[in-house]
Amino acid sequence: MNDVSERVKGLAARDPFVIFLGAECVEAGPGTAVVRMMVRDQHMNFNGTCHGGVLFSLADAAFGLASNSHGRLAAAIDAHIGFTAPVRVGDALTATAVELNRSNRIGTYRVDVRRNDGGVVAAFTGTVYITRREHP
Amino acid sequence: MNDVSERVKGLAARDPFVIFLGAECVEAGPGTAVVRMMVRDQHMNFNGTCHGGVLFSLADAAFGLASNSHGRLAAAIDAHIGFTAPVRVGDALTATAVELNRSNRIGTYRVDVRRNDGGVVAAFTGTVYITRREHP
Amino acid sequence: MNDVSERVKGLAARDPFVIFLGAECVEAGPGTAVVRMMVRDQHMNFNGTCHGGVLFSLADAAFGLASNSHGRLAAAIDAHIGFTAPVRVGDALTATAVELNRSNRIGTYRVDVRRNDGGVVAAFTGTVYITRREHP
Amino acid sequence: MNDVSERVKGLAARDPFVIFLGAECVEAGPGTAVVRMMVRDQHMNFNGTCHGGVLFSLADAAFGLASNSHGRLAAAIDAHIGFTAPVRVGDALTATAVELNRSNRIGTYRVDVRRNDGGVVAAFTGTVYITRREHP
Repeated sequence: MNDVSERVKGLAARDPFVIFLGAECVEAGPGTAVVRMMVRDQHMNFNGTCHGGVLFSLADAAFGLASNSHGRLAAAIDAHIGFTAPVRVGDALTATAVELNRSNRIGTYRVDVRRNDGGVVAAFTGTVYITRREHP
Repeated sequence: MNDVSERVKGLAARDPFVIFLGAECVEAGPGTAVVRMMVRDQHMNFNGTCHGGVLFSLADAAFGLASNSHGRLAAAIDAHIGFTAPVRVGDALTATAVELNRSNRIGTYRVDVRRNDGGVVAAFTGTVYITRREHP
Repeated sequence: MNDVSERVKGLAARDPFVIFLGAECVEAGPGTAVVRMMVRDQHMNFNGTCHGGVLFSLADAAFGLASNSHGRLAAAIDAHIGFTAPVRVGDALTATAVELNRSNRIGTYRVDVRRNDGGVVAAFTGTVYITRREHP
Repeated sequence: MNDVSERVKGLAARDPFVIFLGAECVEAGPGTAVVRMMVRDQHMNFNGTCHGGVLFSLADAAFGLASNSHGRLAAAIDAHIGFTAPVRVGDALTATAVELNRSNRIGTYRVDVRRNDGGVVAAFTGTVYITRREHP
């Protein structure tokens, strides 16, 4: 379990786009991952609220880590996101991914993105194709 | 028509996250928008391919511009993305959004993201809630 | 609470397509609904497993009831479904809808569809537009 | 081409749920299929408009046929549907599926559902996992 957590955090720490966003994996286990970030000026859209792409990217990062936590390389096939509340500069966001189902080839994950006040701001579902390749 | 194009490009030019990504609106009209970007090192994931969040963000930017092109403020409710081919550093991507349907309150848009060789790398569908507020 | 349950079950009992499918609402409350059905020969596809349309319809029925449980007419805008395991003739399915978020205009719901052995066979997320009209 | 069309129509003709719905495949080719149905009383929901499950099932039928048109068994992984306009008893609906992308293992398809007046009533995107098994 500890090994899984260390390995998954290591994947996040060398993910260029996760770093570029300013996000960080704070917890992980078999089939789960928790990723956090602080919303900053560069994450806004032209309406002055957090860009949908930022919320998706955060959820997608948690999904990617959770689906790769078992050691085999998993590639995202598709994802759906519902935006349930606006997000502002200064909000701290937490994306929590859980495994809903995993067969030999396909895995399905759900991710909730929450503000620090606990409100759900995005509901994400993602599917991966699981390859035969092991992570290095 | 020219006015729409100028106004929509103006929205993109003052969108902090679009700028942060390195994307640019190159074409727009009533209900449509085309956004381009070059894929760079900071857009990669831990597997060495372009992060799903980048592809989503690019498609979402085109969707946001197309759905706000009519002058009334539109807020994304949900979006779905299918990832159809891997994307690498150096690929030039083009996201083209078209309006599928628009009533007084709800609009539905499709976005294709293509590489410069014409291959579709992501298929996106998004829905907006159309408010009564006009853009400034 | 009892009133909500009775009213929502009443909506299901006069829903022609729910009856046509052979489904039934067995539980409901504010923002929630549970719908059950037995999978029969007419629900199969050409591959001999349960048609995706049947699983979606069952989940959608639970979603429609949960989102209309508060008394105001709510209309589905979009939905996503992940199919996580095959379903066969004779399986008893239960769809459980919960409210993830509800503002004045938009509501987001998640539905899990499970076999009687507890296995999740479909993961559904749906969004509604909430009108001002009350149910009769 | 003719062979593909005959084979795909044959799959539809022995699909129990397609028959139960009253739908019919009227055209097919490699990666495409067109399915039609007439909306009847049993397809309504409790609000008196066509049930979302019916629109999904029709789109899903076209998607299933298009994705199985190449001869290898393909199983749906996930699907997204946007409901863009209400549908009434007596409307004739046509679902047209096209192949957006197909690799050795994964295929992505889009389906538009239209009324006879040409209006789009639902926009569907679906993904399949392509098995190694051939259709009998």
